[in-house]
Amino acid sequence: MDTKKIQTRLAKFAKERNWDQFHSPKNLSMALSVEVAELVEIFQWLNTGDLDEIKSLNKINNVEEEVADIFIYLLRISNKLDLDLEKIIDAKISTNEKKYPIKKSYGTSKKYSDL
Amino acid sequence: MDTKKIQTRLAKFAKERNWDQFHSPKNLSMALSVEVAELVEIFQWLNTGDLDEIKSLNKINNVEEEVADIFIYLLRISNKLDLDLEKIIDAKISTNEKKYPIKKSYGTSKKYSDL
Amino acid sequence: MDTKKIQTRLAKFAKERNWDQFHSPKNLSMALSVEVAELVEIFQWLNTGDLDEIKSLNKINNVEEEVADIFIYLLRISNKLDLDLEKIIDAKISTNEKKYPIKKSYGTSKKYSDL
Amino acid sequence: MDTKKIQTRLAKFAKERNWDQFHSPKNLSMALSVEVAELVEIFQWLNTGDLDEIKSLNKINNVEEEVADIFIYLLRISNKLDLDLEKIIDAKISTNEKKYPIKKSYGTSKKYSDL
Repeated sequence: MDTKKIQTRLAKFAKERNWDQFHSPKNLSMALSVEVAELVEIFQWLNTGDLDEIKSLNKINNVEEEVADIFIYLLRISNKLDLDLEKIIDAKISTNEKKYPIKKSYGTSKKYSDL
Repeated sequence: MDTKKIQTRLAKFAKERNWDQFHSPKNLSMALSVEVAELVEIFQWLNTGDLDEIKSLNKINNVEEEVADIFIYLLRISNKLDLDLEKIIDAKISTNEKKYPIKKSYGTSKKYSDL
Repeated sequence: MDTKKIQTRLAKFAKERNWDQFHSPKNLSMALSVEVAELVEIFQWLNTGDLDEIKSLNKINNVEEEVADIFIYLLRISNKLDLDLEKIIDAKISTNEKKYPIKKSYGTSKKYSDL
Repeated sequence: MDTKKIQTRLAKFAKERNWDQFHSPKNLSMALSVEVAELVEIFQWLNTGDLDEIKSLNKINNVEEEVADIFIYLLRISNKLDLDLEKIIDAKISTNEKKYPIKKSYGTSKKYSDL
């Protein structure tokens, strides 16, 4: 995925509408949380929300739209704060690998601080 | 960004720990909302949370970690639900371009349904 | 519950600490969402989170603290915006009774707009 | 506010619709987070969301409805988990008074762990 290209497109979209005045990282974090809640809303009364269940309820398009919205706001915040996405994602997964050694965390959903 | 490669790494991470039993799309949507709230928490009492403000508070590492966590869960849900990320993001931006014509939406934060 | 009395205590707490500068309804809504996510975090990998499950995991104190935090921020926002809680709760339940007639909504989790 | 009476009304509402099957504490925490996000959505692009701003945008009814929805789900979870609301709220405010001594926390929005 060419995240830079998408970010450029999103920046142009906002600039053309004079929306940078609204797009502070603080406000974007709120908008992001709203979009995530719209995804949560789809799942709230379901069993597991797996692909079969989502398809049987004809909700796959809704899921796609909400996931896209979340990505869009996340790319926008990352752009506003000059984040190097690949670097920070790689670093975080490496951190998680250390925080959750296989032996200790096998088959348990406990937080590292409770392990 | 090679999202497929990251998704494969995340799938391996979960499988090695026998965590797929927890990683239903429903549960992942909850985890995603928790990580977003940890990002919101950084911004809640700030003015705009722009890069200068974040740097002056020494919070850039915290922001990076939370944004990474959000990406990780979002890639994981997308993988579980077989979403074609590039396609759905492109489609959503195109939809937004139509929902928010420049003339109507210039300089206003109103929702399309209120325009 | 004497919500007025609690609101007065919370207002005094904030005033003594010179925190009204931070407690705009906007910021309080963010803080509220953060506390709710801390409650969601307790439930995210559980089956149903019913009282037995919560007790068996020794999480009842955590639940109590998060629910209390949510109430506190909600009472604070309501105070800042001069809301008449009893009135609006009563009105909303009455609205729901009309939006979800028993016959139509029996045994289904569908939203009123999908019924 | 007679929270017990409201909880009884809400329990009857759910029972008549055979909705207890959906109303696990886990699912209710998700629904709660969705309602909070609907409140956040009202504030996301505003300055402070104070009463004047909300009134000038004709959003007071929307705020009232979302706050009512949040209260309703919170009372419902509290009922399902047998929480003594007055007790836990009182205890939490007392805890906060100790965690945030006036001298240390005057005029700062820092978390107690950063004080």
